[in-house]
Amino acid sequence: DAVNIDKVLEEITNDESMSHCRLVQTATSVREVSKQLQRRPLKRAVRSVMIVTKARDNQLVVLTSELTKWLLSTPRYGSDLGFTVYVDSKLRNSKRFDKKGILNQNPRFEHMLKFWTPDMCWNQPEKFDLVLTLGGDGTVLYTSWLFQRIVPPVLSFSLGSLGFMTTFEFEKYKEHLDRVLGDAGMKINLRMRFTCTVWRAGLLGDSQEGEQFEVLNELVIDRGPSPYVSNLELYGDDELLTVVQADGCIFSTPTGSTAYSLSAGGSLVHPDIPAILLTPICPHTLSFRPMVLSDTMALRVAVPRDSRATAYCAFDGKGRIELRQGDHVTITASQYPFPTVTRTDNEWFDSVRRTLRWNVRAAAQKPF
Amino acid sequence: DAVNIDKVLEEITNDESMSHCRLVQTATSVREVSKQLQRRPLKRAVRSVMIVTKARDNQLVVLTSELTKWLLSTPRYGSDLGFTVYVDSKLRNSKRFDKKGILNQNPRFEHMLKFWTPDMCWNQPEKFDLVLTLGGDGTVLYTSWLFQRIVPPVLSFSLGSLGFMTTFEFEKYKEHLDRVLGDAGMKINLRMRFTCTVWRAGLLGDSQEGEQFEVLNELVIDRGPSPYVSNLELYGDDELLTVVQADGCIFSTPTGSTAYSLSAGGSLVHPDIPAILLTPICPHTLSFRPMVLSDTMALRVAVPRDSRATAYCAFDGKGRIELRQGDHVTITASQYPFPTVTRTDNEWFDSVRRTLRWNVRAAAQKPF
Amino acid sequence: DAVNIDKVLEEITNDESMSHCRLVQTATSVREVSKQLQRRPLKRAVRSVMIVTKARDNQLVVLTSELTKWLLSTPRYGSDLGFTVYVDSKLRNSKRFDKKGILNQNPRFEHMLKFWTPDMCWNQPEKFDLVLTLGGDGTVLYTSWLFQRIVPPVLSFSLGSLGFMTTFEFEKYKEHLDRVLGDAGMKINLRMRFTCTVWRAGLLGDSQEGEQFEVLNELVIDRGPSPYVSNLELYGDDELLTVVQADGCIFSTPTGSTAYSLSAGGSLVHPDIPAILLTPICPHTLSFRPMVLSDTMALRVAVPRDSRATAYCAFDGKGRIELRQGDHVTITASQYPFPTVTRTDNEWFDSVRRTLRWNVRAAAQKPF
Amino acid sequence: DAVNIDKVLEEITNDESMSHCRLVQTATSVREVSKQLQRRPLKRAVRSVMIVTKARDNQLVVLTSELTKWLLSTPRYGSDLGFTVYVDSKLRNSKRFDKKGILNQNPRFEHMLKFWTPDMCWNQPEKFDLVLTLGGDGTVLYTSWLFQRIVPPVLSFSLGSLGFMTTFEFEKYKEHLDRVLGDAGMKINLRMRFTCTVWRAGLLGDSQEGEQFEVLNELVIDRGPSPYVSNLELYGDDELLTVVQADGCIFSTPTGSTAYSLSAGGSLVHPDIPAILLTPICPHTLSFRPMVLSDTMALRVAVPRDSRATAYCAFDGKGRIELRQGDHVTITASQYPFPTVTRTDNEWFDSVRRTLRWNVRAAAQKPF
Repeated sequence: DAVNIDKVLEEITNDESMSHCRLVQTATSVREVSKQLQRRPLKRAVRSVMIVTKARDNQLVVLTSELTKWLLSTPRYGSDLGFTVYVDSKLRNSKRFDKKGILNQNPRFEHMLKFWTPDMCWNQPEKFDLVLTLGGDGTVLYTSWLFQRIVPPVLSFSLGSLGFMTTFEFEKYKEHLDRVLGDAGMKINLRMRFTCTVWRAGLLGDSQEGEQFEVLNELVIDRGPSPYVSNLELYGDDELLTVVQADGCIFSTPTGSTAYSLSAGGSLVHPDIPAILLTPICPHTLSFRPMVLSDTMALRVAVPRDSRATAYCAFDGKGRIELRQGDHVTITASQYPFPTVTRTDNEWFDSVRRTLRWNVRAAAQKPF
Repeated sequence: DAVNIDKVLEEITNDESMSHCRLVQTATSVREVSKQLQRRPLKRAVRSVMIVTKARDNQLVVLTSELTKWLLSTPRYGSDLGFTVYVDSKLRNSKRFDKKGILNQNPRFEHMLKFWTPDMCWNQPEKFDLVLTLGGDGTVLYTSWLFQRIVPPVLSFSLGSLGFMTTFEFEKYKEHLDRVLGDAGMKINLRMRFTCTVWRAGLLGDSQEGEQFEVLNELVIDRGPSPYVSNLELYGDDELLTVVQADGCIFSTPTGSTAYSLSAGGSLVHPDIPAILLTPICPHTLSFRPMVLSDTMALRVAVPRDSRATAYCAFDGKGRIELRQGDHVTITASQYPFPTVTRTDNEWFDSVRRTLRWNVRAAAQKPF
Repeated sequence: DAVNIDKVLEEITNDESMSHCRLVQTATSVREVSKQLQRRPLKRAVRSVMIVTKARDNQLVVLTSELTKWLLSTPRYGSDLGFTVYVDSKLRNSKRFDKKGILNQNPRFEHMLKFWTPDMCWNQPEKFDLVLTLGGDGTVLYTSWLFQRIVPPVLSFSLGSLGFMTTFEFEKYKEHLDRVLGDAGMKINLRMRFTCTVWRAGLLGDSQEGEQFEVLNELVIDRGPSPYVSNLELYGDDELLTVVQADGCIFSTPTGSTAYSLSAGGSLVHPDIPAILLTPICPHTLSFRPMVLSDTMALRVAVPRDSRATAYCAFDGKGRIELRQGDHVTITASQYPFPTVTRTDNEWFDSVRRTLRWNVRAAAQKPF
Repeated sequence: DAVNIDKVLEEITNDESMSHCRLVQTATSVREVSKQLQRRPLKRAVRSVMIVTKARDNQLVVLTSELTKWLLSTPRYGSDLGFTVYVDSKLRNSKRFDKKGILNQNPRFEHMLKFWTPDMCWNQPEKFDLVLTLGGDGTVLYTSWLFQRIVPPVLSFSLGSLGFMTTFEFEKYKEHLDRVLGDAGMKINLRMRFTCTVWRAGLLGDSQEGEQFEVLNELVIDRGPSPYVSNLELYGDDELLTVVQADGCIFSTPTGSTAYSLSAGGSLVHPDIPAILLTPICPHTLSFRPMVLSDTMALRVAVPRDSRATAYCAFDGKGRIELRQGDHVTITASQYPFPTVTRTDNEWFDSVRRTLRWNVRAAAQKPF
């Protein structure tokens, strides 16, 4: 019934006599499959909705309360009630969120209003059919950090000006949600994440697995507080590609190409592209330019055992971890992408135009 | 027996109940198929070899003659003779090539030594099982220009220092060819090309198809000799993305990312990545940065009907064509990729390192 | 009475015993003199005012007429009349300018309203005590082009948004002019220009002087319509500095650093700095970076006699001139700077901030 | 007798009737004086020579010993002995330097071989008529750090490949020194330094002067180990120019334009140019571009009192100092420039060409 890709792979591998022409045709067709997968609208029965916001932001907590009430009370799928709603457990006793007031509206809400913890996101991600975020791009990154494995579809509201990932205006939340949860269905963009794993040098020349993080934007490795720059060794598929002489380097997803990588001179990369951006920060060699590498490559960055300096990692801007001599980090395309609900087919271009102010002429004198 | 991708596509499209989880898994697997297709060595019975070189370069013609003799005379596949060899028809009467001298070596060569014309490349590409090029990257681009549709596998020799596409030293041609034509087989890199089609504005607001070119490196659209810059309209999948205010713009394949696009500030993009690079030349808006777009996008560049200036196209550096008011060009990933025989799995990195002199410190003062 | 710099120079040259310490002190003081010269307000008796505008722009012609009337009729320096006004001779018979109407206001205007021609700007620049421009930065460049030798002080009005050189709002022209022509005096910024001289290769290996232009923004030398890039030889003080491998190169004044040079990646250079910017266009060598050279250097760019291609020059965006094999251009700081009336001491920064929209965050995602 | 610049300044200031034309002429002449000052060879009676090297580098210490002997023993100025030589006091007891062996050569050396301390450089810089450095550009920066006020002329030897400031090969030290200390005289390049002063926020809104450093290359202000970026306020002549949103910013001298500033995208600036380079590190606003400001401007960078993060300063790569909320640093052109002995008139271009490998084509594919 469903597609058996394993069988397809097996067939290809065994097809000794496959002609060159056939090879070309197949590669073209395979890409088409991939494209179809990303474009078809997803109609799923959403039963539970999780809300992520900044629990310390008073204004956002009030809006979260409003949104919660609407989600609970608006009838769905023939029932006279709405969705089960999971709210940040930090708001359980918040006056501004007003759990009590919500439950007073309808006694049946008691079983429908629940509270999520980071632990649940880690262990039971399948509890959530849809995640709504209220805040900025930072709140989206936080959501990515919560779901280190399987991620439910994420729909992100913006409170003020729309961002690269927050493409739904909160003012129109009813309209937006009725549409994507209704017959139109959700179009999903599977945004690549990286699995970054720290490996610590053992005494015997071995390595022990350390911290692991999924990143949606980027991994940054730099010299941290050290005045000395570490010469970082960069390996691709276990082969030494180059020694990076720079203040640091950024391993960015296409999603992250509009963030830190852009400041360091990287290109804008469309999120559909299966790629790892390697953008050096202040490279000492002028010819060491931003690169776009294949997501099928396993990258590894090592601090040489005889290095004078150590290095520091930051994962989506969080949690500085020191890499000491002999340590390394591996970066690979994650098997747990970050599915975002898209608003329009061209929303990436809309974001770029809007955020980079393309229609405003930002340069210089007018022509003669 | 062979892979039926059409069937796979059909299955996916019909799978209404496909769960979100399944969607993620399938996308991951599909990418894996694509990777396998590019990595498996191709063992094909090569019977005829075509040689492309600069017919005006005396030194190259002499080497072509030497190579031809060796290809004709070295026994292959149990026979006591070698391959059928196709040489540029411009060399038919060349003293330096010395057709007569070659045929004198063995009368059976009479039926094995043939001469190719551009016409044959266009109409009967399947005549050639393998193309060898002698020269620089320019000779490889010329080969791409010769084969506007299906391209046979191309193995490129370098005479001097190795280039980005000329990765086999000619000095060791016997060794190289014995290996790839023997049991080891050829590993093929399917390099994307673009199909660029010029459309001319008709009197009635319609458009008529004009010239069409396959490009391996890039399409450049600039203001040509005009002192005025045209505001080019850029469309993606028929939607206006932006109006380009710049001296021009470069639409580059990943293969071309190491050529003109690099000079204009574009990133280095690995040839495995299915992408279209859009690199502006001297953009007037500082925020208009180099972009990497999906190869599934159909791009179109138009000179507005009310534009003060016209624009000029160059295809892989050749053939300036003027785009007048109302004309447009479409750029799409070609269904006719350019298959190059690869020397090593990491040859792109080797080329980058070698050509950009990464291991040489090209900057500034040493640290304190 | 006035400063005798020649004598100063002579003294320094003869001071054989000048100690190192003294040398340092003198250099410092000399720079201070230069600074004072640029900062002191100039109070001069302005008797005649020239107006430059786009004679084809109807709106501007009407405003020119209004400005003319005001300048003629507003009493100055104890007289009951205003300035002598020179208007573009192209407007002599313009209905919109309405010479007749103006003269009807006061018969004495007959001797005060005059018309300028390009010839007068060339031969009798001392006729004009002050030039007012109405238009954009392009009109300022045109004014520079009119005055190929001595340039009177230039005050530039902007009609819409202020530009880099048009820093006085036309809406407030009365207020602005009353101030700078009154007791406050004019502060003048002496903007450097380049003297660019084309030299044609003679038959005997000699060179003959050709066209000469003063440029306020930049000289651009590029390949023009040619698909081939010329390797341009760059000499400084008659020594070969490098061979430029690029699409072209820009020799920009600090004033021009906000124009084309910026698009090509050049730095923003404050107009007070005595420098020549050399900004390559799409350089083939990644380490060939924008440079800022001393204005005391005599630069020369030559097309080698054995070059495959020619090159093209554009002076402030005007007049393409072909440089053929053996020709060269010299670029030196001009002895005829372009004096602009400044509005505020920090107007350059104001322009940069305003035009580049610095206070608007033009990039990317917000921090986590 | 000597030039009285104060008088010149006075004359200019009093010359109320100075015409515009005269103003232009004077500015041009004044620049010429400045140029002459930098170009005339300096013949001074050198009596004492100081040697700076890395006291921990065994190889360099041996060469220092050799150089010392030659300087002491080679007859100069009619005497049968050479110069007084000052060596690093850290070498006083070094076996490799072998003070004893040197003194054994000639008892009169006892009074000629002396040892310098950092204290002497600070308090009695006039003791040294010439400084020789053995090492790399780092040793030159160390020399600058030693002399925080008046700096004697510095001649820098390179041991291996020549650097930007180490332009004399040590292998030919006898030849080089005989020439510059003989009739040819020394040509001196007065390299600008910056005086950087840290000001600490007082409790009452006042500021107290803190550390002060002379820098030859650059002052870097960045976020240090903090994950947050401080919004730095940049003032020029006490006016707020902009708020810097970036990882940091570099204030570089022209000498430093080939160091860190280049890595961050700054232009190459000729050392003769009186300028302050402001180069942002990873700016968040794409239009915030590298700038070249006048050395007559007093710059100030402040950490706002309400800033979330602090900032860190590094002076020529040394000594991280934290700037807390309310602190600021001033940067002005120093009255104590760094005089380097130049080897050739075009040595800067030679360095650039050599170090950036301009004659090597560092890019991409050859043209078609």
